[in-house]
Amino acid sequence: MFPRVYLPDVNRETEEVRLPDDEAHHLGRVLRVGPGAEVRVFDGRGREYRAHVTTASRQDVRVRVSEPVAAQPLPHVSLTVVQALLKGNAMDDIVRDCTMVGVTALQPVRSERCTVSAASLSRARERWQRVAVASAKQCGRAALPVIAEPTPFPLWLDRHRTGLALLLVEPAAAAGALRLRDLARQAVPERASIVVGPEGGWTPEEHEAARAAGCQALTLGPLTLRAAAVPLVAAAALLALWE
Amino acid sequence: MFPRVYLPDVNRETEEVRLPDDEAHHLGRVLRVGPGAEVRVFDGRGREYRAHVTTASRQDVRVRVSEPVAAQPLPHVSLTVVQALLKGNAMDDIVRDCTMVGVTALQPVRSERCTVSAASLSRARERWQRVAVASAKQCGRAALPVIAEPTPFPLWLDRHRTGLALLLVEPAAAAGALRLRDLARQAVPERASIVVGPEGGWTPEEHEAARAAGCQALTLGPLTLRAAAVPLVAAAALLALWE
Repeated sequence: MFPRVYLPDVNRETEEVRLPDDEAHHLGRVLRVGPGAEVRVFDGRGREYRAHVTTASRQDVRVRVSEPVAAQPLPHVSLTVVQALLKGNAMDDIVRDCTMVGVTALQPVRSERCTVSAASLSRARERWQRVAVASAKQCGRAALPVIAEPTPFPLWLDRHRTGLALLLVEPAAAAGALRLRDLARQAVPERASIVVGPEGGWTPEEHEAARAAGCQALTLGPLTLRAAAVPLVAAAALLALWE
Repeated sequence: MFPRVYLPDVNRETEEVRLPDDEAHHLGRVLRVGPGAEVRVFDGRGREYRAHVTTASRQDVRVRVSEPVAAQPLPHVSLTVVQALLKGNAMDDIVRDCTMVGVTALQPVRSERCTVSAASLSRARERWQRVAVASAKQCGRAALPVIAEPTPFPLWLDRHRTGLALLLVEPAAAAGALRLRDLARQAVPERASIVVGPEGGWTPEEHEAARAAGCQALTLGPLTLRAAAVPLVAAAALLALWE
């Protein structure tokens, strides 16, 4: 895979372009790419171009953009991960992993048992965007996932739930829940959401509200997964199943 | 879930037992469990017991073991992850995640493009055992995965391959590879192995040797996953599919 550069403004008319500081640093100092090297430039909305490095000094890295190339195909199913806010760096890992497996959108939600302070969220969305860009460069996708503004879980249930919505439940709440095998027997949906709780799980009231709003419970088996691994495992398994 | 203690020697005859230092520290100082608290004690081979803390001082933590309890069920399919050695902490993460999703055994292998030095491996297996114990405590499994001695990949192909063996291939090598959907149409195997390459992938010779030895190529889709996430994603998806 060629080194990849994120330039949201790139288009068919772009000729030589000077890279912004962060992209210049990544290409020139981290990947140590020099003049003449072939790279790929993507716009984050699904377009990708062939390009060559023309200048690579410490202060000034430029690329000449040539023809469009076929972007990496994304999964056919548009999958949204609705994730209750987790502590520490867990959300960064989730953004990275969801980008990597081809999720269309990530919707952070605030649920009863979330313990994340509003202060720690103030610049989080900006950071998540950067994490998504870094992950997109590595995994080859040319369209970034949409990272939505955090919203209260009841509001998401009320206003935004569409299509198949699967509420991931822990082993203790798995009685009657769908298993992956059950989904393998159903038609592949056009769009779907998986809804993942915080470290402490859902309250019974949230579980019931989700059910009443049309979410179906899904279990991944008898073992207790790390909270931050649940969206990766669920998204990867579902997208692979539906591919 | 109750706090869980790993005591390989526990059995039906065990009464009061003083915990070894690491378990005492984890229970008393990390989880801050005091006298009277109910805990679970497991032997790492699938047996689990109810127990209560009787003493919890800084130097001396003891539990009284009572009746056996049903252990968390493990997946029906015995899955071995054959993992080419990765750099840094990636193998620790893989041990943790494979334990968490219910893998039966982890077989580290040395492949052509492995860049891990023998020196860095000298105490690795001991560390992996500790990582597996910590992960088993958290995810609820009572039987630890077997963590095998690292072995050359050709030797594994030659001597140890049995049952369904799936070689994970990167998107560039995915032509003709099985997809998860194909496996959903086949009978559930009793035992299976997934074989995961190093950061740099397999050499064409290794790929061919694996094919000749009866491994089938499996692709997880068009995107390039982080090397350390591949076994988690593949194991979780397959075990969920076969459950």
